[in-house]
Amino acid sequence: MTQHDPTLGELGEFAVIDAVAAGRAHPDGVLVGPGDDAAVLATPDGRTVVSTDMLVQDRHFRLDWSTPQQIGRRAIAQNAADIEAMGAMPTGFLVAFGAPAETPARMATELSDGLSEEAAKVGASVVGGDLVTAPQWVVSVTALGDLGGRPAVLRSGTRAGDVVAVSGELGRSAGGYALLAAGATELGPELSALVERHLTPVPPYGQGAVAAAAGATAMTDISDGLITDLAQLAEASGVGIELSTTELAPDTDALVVAAAALSLDPAVVNEWVLGGGEDHALAATFPSHIELPERWRAIGQVVEQPGIRVDGQAWQGPAGWDSYGATR
Amino acid sequence: MTQHDPTLGELGEFAVIDAVAAGRAHPDGVLVGPGDDAAVLATPDGRTVVSTDMLVQDRHFRLDWSTPQQIGRRAIAQNAADIEAMGAMPTGFLVAFGAPAETPARMATELSDGLSEEAAKVGASVVGGDLVTAPQWVVSVTALGDLGGRPAVLRSGTRAGDVVAVSGELGRSAGGYALLAAGATELGPELSALVERHLTPVPPYGQGAVAAAAGATAMTDISDGLITDLAQLAEASGVGIELSTTELAPDTDALVVAAAALSLDPAVVNEWVLGGGEDHALAATFPSHIELPERWRAIGQVVEQPGIRVDGQAWQGPAGWDSYGATR
Repeated sequence: MTQHDPTLGELGEFAVIDAVAAGRAHPDGVLVGPGDDAAVLATPDGRTVVSTDMLVQDRHFRLDWSTPQQIGRRAIAQNAADIEAMGAMPTGFLVAFGAPAETPARMATELSDGLSEEAAKVGASVVGGDLVTAPQWVVSVTALGDLGGRPAVLRSGTRAGDVVAVSGELGRSAGGYALLAAGATELGPELSALVERHLTPVPPYGQGAVAAAAGATAMTDISDGLITDLAQLAEASGVGIELSTTELAPDTDALVVAAAALSLDPAVVNEWVLGGGEDHALAATFPSHIELPERWRAIGQVVEQPGIRVDGQAWQGPAGWDSYGATR
Repeated sequence: MTQHDPTLGELGEFAVIDAVAAGRAHPDGVLVGPGDDAAVLATPDGRTVVSTDMLVQDRHFRLDWSTPQQIGRRAIAQNAADIEAMGAMPTGFLVAFGAPAETPARMATELSDGLSEEAAKVGASVVGGDLVTAPQWVVSVTALGDLGGRPAVLRSGTRAGDVVAVSGELGRSAGGYALLAAGATELGPELSALVERHLTPVPPYGQGAVAAAAGATAMTDISDGLITDLAQLAEASGVGIELSTTELAPDTDALVVAAAALSLDPAVVNEWVLGGGEDHALAATFPSHIELPERWRAIGQVVEQPGIRVDGQAWQGPAGWDSYGATR
């Protein structure tokens, strides 16, 4: 005999919200948490950093690939990365969740668990949200952050002569996606780790603030693909960027095993690293006289000539992810 | 010969975002606007108020009833009302928009026009957003606000003996919805105004801060229905509320014409006023010795006995709107 699993529609919006918000811990900066018309966060810096990202079922995640907990973790991670990319630290998240009325309420609790777990990794919490009926799952997250007295690090601040560096992993999400899309099963630990990275990115939390404190001149997170995101940074700064595949070897080397498992041309690892998004690594530029912080590594140079070149050539492969499906 | 109307998918995410963000004015408090990884807002008060609401096509709006501009205005209005209900003033909005790739880009521009127009009414702007593919329209808005040095007005602060008052209109949205749902056409100016109120609510902007400054002890916006929202406020405060239909006459009287046009029992106007949500009026409680601010009117009393009573009786009609369709 199985117990009946109540749905969102049976419990109703207010009961579900009460249940998922109950007992969650909040840091001291959350002056008013969930349950009122709005939340109130402390902003001792006198500024607040804000960003929003929407994830739609079957476009940004699949319920047969990801657990609700993984979807929650990813939704927070990619929003937190946008805050980090300004040189700030996340302070709170708001989550609007749309789902069919027949969704088991248990799945909303698991989503909420993932949201709260990932938020806790950056010392923050989910301070508010909304729960509505939708034909499919939609998870819309807004992240707030604090600059700790530092200037915001924009995309527009780099100049020719700066070093381009990254913190975090590149290409892992694209490699993991290729394995999932090919239906690869019985994966060993190395390949399983790539799949896990696609389902739940691991941004280099704290490194945005580290880069800002070290003197980064421009910064962005890698969400749409390294080439695409660096192209936006270069355009905003009125410069170009030269990348070197030699310097990207730590990333491409880690993906050779996935290309082999899928019997793909080994060169595909360059496409994954240069064109694959969703790893939410951070890319920043630093004046060349600055020693890079510990968890940052150089991958290229800022130059005057506009555009992005790889080993001296304009990149010909897929550049990255466009939300409407066009490869740029 | 008609010109081809480019779609979101044809233009691509980045081009559409650039186009809708171009040339929009921002107040001084927007330190970094759209176009970077995140926006930066000034928070001179040392706190920020935040709230989020998701609107889903065919659940919260219909594209055959509302123009994209009206949808944008409503999305901002209902989020601004949540900020007002804390006693704060909106300072900025983030908008995540999901839509099919074949949506004409013109419609996104019109939506954006509505968002910006309504934000400007409260002296704020759209500071950031996201644009993604979704099977239907989803508009998820986050509002930020500033308390101007005042304490936040929570739902939990009222006590027996306080006066319950409202600012703004009640029941207009429900009356307008009834006219739309009945397919009523050729409406005179009075009925058309009700339909317009349903499509674009008119919150009493600025009155949240006025109530806070005047000494309001608790406040909420009327989004789910007067009874439902007051029940939440009463429960949070551990009290009950007695309402009087006599004091609600300014609202019920204004709806008699709609009940007549639809040949409905005249008593339906009480249901619209007491059970209808989405007008985004503000309801607040004030100590009885305080003179109500100019645009506020008394509608009832806070009492010790829990629950909401109308003219001394527990309300038997529909209580309001639950996102999953259950009438509470």
